[in-house]
Amino acid sequence: MADEKKTMSRRAFITNGAVAAGTIAIGGGLLGGFNFNSAKAEDKTNAPVTWPLPFAPLDVERAKVLGYQGYMANQCCYGAFDAVMQQLREKIGYPYTAIPSEIMLWGGTGGAGYATLCGALIGAATAINVVVHPKDEMNKIVEELFSWASTFEFPQYMPPAGKAGKAEGKLPTSVSGSPLCHISVSNWCKASNYRAESKERSERCGRLTADVAGKTAELINAYFNKTFVPAHKPAESVGECMTCHGKGGTLENTRGKMDCIQCHDDVDPNNLLDHIKQVWNLK
Amino acid sequence: MADEKKTMSRRAFITNGAVAAGTIAIGGGLLGGFNFNSAKAEDKTNAPVTWPLPFAPLDVERAKVLGYQGYMANQCCYGAFDAVMQQLREKIGYPYTAIPSEIMLWGGTGGAGYATLCGALIGAATAINVVVHPKDEMNKIVEELFSWASTFEFPQYMPPAGKAGKAEGKLPTSVSGSPLCHISVSNWCKASNYRAESKERSERCGRLTADVAGKTAELINAYFNKTFVPAHKPAESVGECMTCHGKGGTLENTRGKMDCIQCHDDVDPNNLLDHIKQVWNLK
Repeated sequence: MADEKKTMSRRAFITNGAVAAGTIAIGGGLLGGFNFNSAKAEDKTNAPVTWPLPFAPLDVERAKVLGYQGYMANQCCYGAFDAVMQQLREKIGYPYTAIPSEIMLWGGTGGAGYATLCGALIGAATAINVVVHPKDEMNKIVEELFSWASTFEFPQYMPPAGKAGKAEGKLPTSVSGSPLCHISVSNWCKASNYRAESKERSERCGRLTADVAGKTAELINAYFNKTFVPAHKPAESVGECMTCHGKGGTLENTRGKMDCIQCHDDVDPNNLLDHIKQVWNLK
Repeated sequence: MADEKKTMSRRAFITNGAVAAGTIAIGGGLLGGFNFNSAKAEDKTNAPVTWPLPFAPLDVERAKVLGYQGYMANQCCYGAFDAVMQQLREKIGYPYTAIPSEIMLWGGTGGAGYATLCGALIGAATAINVVVHPKDEMNKIVEELFSWASTFEFPQYMPPAGKAGKAEGKLPTSVSGSPLCHISVSNWCKASNYRAESKERSERCGRLTADVAGKTAELINAYFNKTFVPAHKPAESVGECMTCHGKGGTLENTRGKMDCIQCHDDVDPNNLLDHIKQVWNLK
């Protein structure tokens, strides 16, 4: 695997540089020769890091644990991002050590309390983007993650007994049908009868973060193993509605892959003729 | 300003380190003494960078230009993120040189084509998060940006004549009422009569990215100048609906700050009694 080799040589290189510098500091007047490693290490600090960053295989189960712990420390977006970044920080070191996971804190509660895109998905998509390239391939992995998340029965992850961050025991599950935080939380509250600001809802989002982090690690690994196959699609309504409203359609007046019917619930997907008649005032 | 001083000393330190290492490489056998700078520079490479990253004042007009150019190169999310990061890369260098702006490519088209949160807002929120701390203060800036973006007449930025990336001349404007890409693009298509995949719509999103990047730089500067005052609020419906549906309400069955009525258009905000009667089957 070319990527692993690249990773290893980079890591070895940085470590060598550190040892060399240590020798200078400790040895003092002992040094008399040309110190090639130190010069190389110095170049490394100043040379811009180029995208994509180096990859090392991820531990899926560890991603879940890190995602869960990250949620409990700093909410969903940080948790999902850190689940990948922390592993790469440990395995590769620099430049991952130069990117603190706290730069993704904002995505918690779907963006500063706005409940737009699920924060776990914001953090996970950024983590995918850090290592997967080129852009088109990266976008396919992110799309797969969003489509999977819209159909998955969250939460499935179970913390070890007695070790839950907010609430012990099994929790009710629900399917959001959407990558949006607002819809995901609302649907779960409806399915579970728990309140939106309860410790159980928070626990649910912690476990969801673990599920998303695990899936993200799995998708990234599959991409680098060349075994990635998209297995989830946007909601059926998207294909139907976008025939007229999407790219190349008669109207082409919007874009997106979120389930149309979740918001446009006045449209019956089984009676689009009726919808067209209504819009054109034909009845 | 403490932050500026911190930035300057950090920058001077790195530069000194680089010069010292150059001396080692060029001087070869000439070195016999303890080289403190080189050892310090080496520690810098391996020491984890902690959040927040150092700040330097941003040029608001330059942020607009970088945002626009970034959009034309790599879409909205990259553009808004790079408008801040590139300036800090130039002014501060490391660790900004270790974070390529391409890590935010995924947000283009609102997240891998899903049209969820506006990509320019994803990139801008991440840039804010890189430098503004603590978390609560950072979230206030991001919330202000989202509330501003939901009420702003996009686009206002005008590229120099003859230098437009996709389409020359003035463009129609619209207010999205939402931080979501899907709604923002749909509303603009309706207001402008341009198609969603037209070069004019793309030009509009490029100029919107410039507007968002400029506002972001302005908000970050204001925060560090201690002149930031929130000036925009979420839509009025949020306060009304969340009285029952939000934190501490009778129902407390959801969360969020997006305009409720944009999707829940069966609810008349001027007749909530009717809404309650309907829900409880009282009529």
